[in-house]
Amino acid sequence: MSLENLNKLMVPAIENELKRIVSQLDEPHTHQFHEMLAYHMGWTGVGSGVVAAGKRIRPLLVLLTFSASSRRSGKVKTDLREWEIALPAAACIELIHNFSLVHDDIQDNSDLRRGRPTVWKKWGMPQAVNVGDVLFILAHIALLDIQNSFKPDVAQRAVAIINEACLALSCGQFMDISYEKKNDLVVEDYWPMISGKTAALLSACTQVGATLGAADASTQESYRDFGHYLGLAFQVHDDYLGIWGDSALTGKSTESDLVAGKKTLPILYGLSKNGVFAKRWVEGSIQTDEVIHLSEQLTKEGVKLYTEEATDQMTDLALQSLRAAEPQGEAGEALFELAKLLLSRKA
Amino acid sequence: MSLENLNKLMVPAIENELKRIVSQLDEPHTHQFHEMLAYHMGWTGVGSGVVAAGKRIRPLLVLLTFSASSRRSGKVKTDLREWEIALPAAACIELIHNFSLVHDDIQDNSDLRRGRPTVWKKWGMPQAVNVGDVLFILAHIALLDIQNSFKPDVAQRAVAIINEACLALSCGQFMDISYEKKNDLVVEDYWPMISGKTAALLSACTQVGATLGAADASTQESYRDFGHYLGLAFQVHDDYLGIWGDSALTGKSTESDLVAGKKTLPILYGLSKNGVFAKRWVEGSIQTDEVIHLSEQLTKEGVKLYTEEATDQMTDLALQSLRAAEPQGEAGEALFELAKLLLSRKA
Repeated sequence: MSLENLNKLMVPAIENELKRIVSQLDEPHTHQFHEMLAYHMGWTGVGSGVVAAGKRIRPLLVLLTFSASSRRSGKVKTDLREWEIALPAAACIELIHNFSLVHDDIQDNSDLRRGRPTVWKKWGMPQAVNVGDVLFILAHIALLDIQNSFKPDVAQRAVAIINEACLALSCGQFMDISYEKKNDLVVEDYWPMISGKTAALLSACTQVGATLGAADASTQESYRDFGHYLGLAFQVHDDYLGIWGDSALTGKSTESDLVAGKKTLPILYGLSKNGVFAKRWVEGSIQTDEVIHLSEQLTKEGVKLYTEEATDQMTDLALQSLRAAEPQGEAGEALFELAKLLLSRKA
Repeated sequence: MSLENLNKLMVPAIENELKRIVSQLDEPHTHQFHEMLAYHMGWTGVGSGVVAAGKRIRPLLVLLTFSASSRRSGKVKTDLREWEIALPAAACIELIHNFSLVHDDIQDNSDLRRGRPTVWKKWGMPQAVNVGDVLFILAHIALLDIQNSFKPDVAQRAVAIINEACLALSCGQFMDISYEKKNDLVVEDYWPMISGKTAALLSACTQVGATLGAADASTQESYRDFGHYLGLAFQVHDDYLGIWGDSALTGKSTESDLVAGKKTLPILYGLSKNGVFAKRWVEGSIQTDEVIHLSEQLTKEGVKLYTEEATDQMTDLALQSLRAAEPQGEAGEALFELAKLLLSRKA
């Protein structure tokens, strides 16, 4: 219930902040440039709306962590409206996330994002590279605003956390792209890749929230760990769904990671078993009609159980870290709810 | 002479600072990622060296402006070594410039940069997009360092200037890409495009230098204007060379903007004349063997003179702004030399 209440309050405020930042582009010579961003953010064009916009999980995490940890005036604050001061940081991280999505779609040659044509598909690759770039630039412009509301050392610390997360994100992306051509990967190669690609930005959300909330150092660390393990659990669960999720098994070829040939955790673990699955994998691309049989084969080889256990383990670490952070009030409850919601997705 | 002396002193310091920042990527899992950056920066690989690295004009402008304007302790400083404190800002802008080059090469489908294969040509487009991204991320990490050496309000101002320049750069890039498909462009469309694409970053160099040097507000503005008009003059001169420069006229098809079909100032002005050139232009792609004849035609139609006058006008405005800034000492002399050098290039 807490999450639902806060979500209703915070997400519209996040949208407004994002629109305010992006509207800087809406000038006579760059009107169409603004249109590309508004389309990608889910605000305009065919299919616009909440589904196209996405759930805004990352900015929500920033605001909830900020609220749950806020000791800014020496006592635990319960005034929920105080979170509005953290909106620029929240919007910044959402813009960084979207910068990475626009470039990801180019790099992966993906035609669709949340059911709609991707930016490069609509306006061509050169403009799409530039749309990603400007989202990142706008993220940094948003960040300047936090220096008006927070002490210089706190603001500087938040900026440093975000920059480090971007560096990790980009390193994770490098690994992900280079893994496509590698045939000698082992399970140990998986963790640094998703630590960068998925966990770094989520851990920046919670760490920045706690830093701006002026939580003490050990609480900041607990929140950072919460975001980190939440990211790992989220990704491993995503990998699970990529093979055993409903849409992966219905036979839509693009939905199964087996057909896409992605080097996910279950696939790398399956390869390490050197069994029937591994033998089939090295023979070449997997076809749609093999998906059900091979997913069952992976289950037989213990890969499904291994993946479920890995998710459980990361989930436990995430919740353990969150408990250690002692999140306060309704926002604290909402953080537990959000973690459970993210890790129980069926598709 | 001043420029030569300071160049010898400053450029190696800039290289060291850049290498220090980029070396953050040299970790076990991202060794090859670091290699891509080191290659692009001109430090490694076939053809590495000063030509591959480029002239580092932008960081040099930051350091020279900083030295020529420095009133940081209430009096004009002549201690040249003081400029070392501005190295992170200088390196930041050079990294931003290189981020834009890497993405530019992808967007323009360019195979060569300073005589060597471009990053996307060597490692593929997906990795090259990511190389550009990480250069931009590293630029922002470099920027954090200036907060250790300058007062928070000065550092914040410098960051704001750089962010605004990046926004303008990206808007200029949007216009440049969208102009490729437009057939109704007029001379008036040219200036906002190059103001963003070329002048914004050069004007950020001089404005940041003067801001960090604690020059007064009107001096900062003069330096900003100097960078701005220097950028415009530089680009118009580049456009001139793209038609009447030695290599454009020797008949190497890729060297003439006529063959490339670029919407440069002389071409847009030529089109506005509605003469023989304009009639030929609308008929379709210009071939190598037409280059000499058409460049002569443009000269006849007054376009060469117009372009030379535009360069002179922008050069005058640049030098006028620089004089108004009253640059001090050897660095001040070097700024005049640098402007003259950039605007007298023959190729």
